[in-house]
Amino acid sequence: MYFPKSVRLCEVGLRDGLQNEKTLLDAEQKLFLLRGLIDAGFPVIEVGSFMSPKAVPQMKDTDDLFKALGSPAGVELRALVANLRGVQRAIDCGCTKVKLNVSASRQHNLRNINRTPEESVASFAESAELARDNGLEVSGSISMPFASPWEGTTPVEDVDSIIEAYLRVGVSEISLSDASGMAMPAQVNELCRHVREKYPQATWWLHFHNTRGLAMANILAAMDAGMTQFDSSFGGLGGCPFVPGAAGNISSEDVIHMCEGCGIETGIDLVKLMALTVNLKEMLSHSLDSYVLKAGRNEDLLKG
Amino acid sequence: MYFPKSVRLCEVGLRDGLQNEKTLLDAEQKLFLLRGLIDAGFPVIEVGSFMSPKAVPQMKDTDDLFKALGSPAGVELRALVANLRGVQRAIDCGCTKVKLNVSASRQHNLRNINRTPEESVASFAESAELARDNGLEVSGSISMPFASPWEGTTPVEDVDSIIEAYLRVGVSEISLSDASGMAMPAQVNELCRHVREKYPQATWWLHFHNTRGLAMANILAAMDAGMTQFDSSFGGLGGCPFVPGAAGNISSEDVIHMCEGCGIETGIDLVKLMALTVNLKEMLSHSLDSYVLKAGRNEDLLKG
Repeated sequence: MYFPKSVRLCEVGLRDGLQNEKTLLDAEQKLFLLRGLIDAGFPVIEVGSFMSPKAVPQMKDTDDLFKALGSPAGVELRALVANLRGVQRAIDCGCTKVKLNVSASRQHNLRNINRTPEESVASFAESAELARDNGLEVSGSISMPFASPWEGTTPVEDVDSIIEAYLRVGVSEISLSDASGMAMPAQVNELCRHVREKYPQATWWLHFHNTRGLAMANILAAMDAGMTQFDSSFGGLGGCPFVPGAAGNISSEDVIHMCEGCGIETGIDLVKLMALTVNLKEMLSHSLDSYVLKAGRNEDLLKG
Repeated sequence: MYFPKSVRLCEVGLRDGLQNEKTLLDAEQKLFLLRGLIDAGFPVIEVGSFMSPKAVPQMKDTDDLFKALGSPAGVELRALVANLRGVQRAIDCGCTKVKLNVSASRQHNLRNINRTPEESVASFAESAELARDNGLEVSGSISMPFASPWEGTTPVEDVDSIIEAYLRVGVSEISLSDASGMAMPAQVNELCRHVREKYPQATWWLHFHNTRGLAMANILAAMDAGMTQFDSSFGGLGGCPFVPGAAGNISSEDVIHMCEGCGIETGIDLVKLMALTVNLKEMLSHSLDSYVLKAGRNEDLLKG
C-alpha cells in the first residue's frame, strides 16, 4: 500500500458545501471564512461559482468575493463556471482559474441538456478559449465517473471518451467527482491507475462524497494509485444531490488528521481550521459531519 | 492495493454496542436480534460477555441467550470473559468460544489492575486451561495496540510482547482492537504486515472504531496487509470509552456494502440485515451511525 509524502487539498465547502445549505451566508461571513481558510494554509480553495443567481442564490456574490480577496500569495482560488457568461464574470472580477463540469452519465446529460457528455465538453471550447486568452487557467470536472443513479457503474470507455474530449479543448487538469457517493475503493484504485497510465499528459483531482461512508477509504485507494490532489470540505459541508439529508463531502479536518497520522504533508494547520469550522457551525446553526471536530484529534485525547 | 476474495465478519453490536447504551434490552429483544443476525448469515457473532451484572447490567442475561440459542449450524457464537468465573459461566450455558482481553497500554493496565499487560495475560492461563479442558475455544484481544490516550502511539515491541504472552498461554487467535479509535491507516498496514510475518502461527481479527472517521480506511489498510477477519456492529452501535458521544464501531452495513462493491464475499445478506437494524433502531429509540442505512445501497439509487 502506497502513501504519498504530501498531498494538495482543495477546500470546496464554500462552493459545493454552501450551495446545499438553506441558510444564506452574506459576503462578509464568506470573506471571514475564506480568509480563515487561506490563513490555515489551504493551497487551493474553490471560492464559489458563476451561475445564475436565480438558480443558485447561495453563489450570487462570488464576483464580490474575488474582488475583495484579490490575489493572496500561496493560494490558488478557483471557481466553477458553466458557460461563456460565467467565464466573462470570472475575468471581470479577477478570478484566475475556472473549472468546467460535465456528467459522465449519458442519460443524465441527455435528459438535462439534450447532449452527450462529449458534446457538452466540445461546447466548452469557446469558454476555455476565452478564459485562456485572458490568462485564466482552466480545469475540467467529470461528475459520476465511477457510477451514477442512471447507468449504475460508469463504463471506463465513457470516462476515457470524456477525458479525450477535454484534452481536445485543451483542458488537461481533470477532476473525477463522485457526486453521487457511489464509488467503491477497488474501482477507484483501478480507474485511477488506468487514467494515470493512459493519459500521462493530464493532472488529476479526486472529489469524494461520504454518502455511503466510503470517502476516506476511496481517498486511500486513490493515493495508492498515485493520486495526490483531493477536494474536501470543512465540517464535511455538503450533501448528495440524489439523497436528501445524506452526508456531504469528506471532511477537511478528517482528511488532514489522517494525513498527519500517516506522515503525509498537507501544509494546513489543523488547529486553526478546527477553530474556523466552529465559526462555520455557528453561522449555519446545525451540527457538521466532521468526526475530528466532534471527537478531537488523537493528540487531544492524550492524558497529560 | 490488495483486496481479498472473501472476509469473515463478526457482529459485535450486541456486546460492544449494547454495553454503551442506556436503554436496556431484555432477553427476548436480544434473541430476536440474534436470530435475525444468524439468519442474515454472519459467520461469527459476539453474543455478550460474562461480567458482573452490577458492573455491566446490559450483559446480565448472556447465559440465558446462549441457553436459548443452543448450537445453530454455520455460526460461531462467542462471548467476552475476564476471568475463571466468566469461563465457568460460559461452560455452564453452552457457550463454546470465549475471548479474553488486555489493554496494550502499560499505564492503563497498571492504573486499572496494577499489572503489566504481560502479567495480565499470564494470569489468563488458568481461565484458558479451564476453557480448553471443557472443549471451548479461546481467543485473546489486545485493546489499543495502535495507540492509547496514555502513551500515544503504542510501541511495536509492546504489542509483540503481549502477543508472545498470549502464545505462551496457548492462545493463538488474536484480535487487535482499536478501542480508542486512534489507529491510522499507514500504521495499521505496517503493524498488520509485521505481526502476520513475525507470528505465522497466529490468526488475526481486527476491531476498528470510527471515532475519527477512519475505521473503513483502516479495514482497507488491514485487508491490503492480508487480514480477512473483522469485527463490525449493526447500525454502527457502540461508542468510544474515552470520548462521550463519539461514533462507535464501524457499521456492519457499511462494511458489507463496501465488500459487495469490491467483489469481496461476506456470505451476509445485506438487505435482511438492514431490515433487522431498523428494528434495532426502534428498540433503542435513537438514530444509528450507519451511512448505508441512511442513504441506501448504491443499487437502491438506481432509476427505473
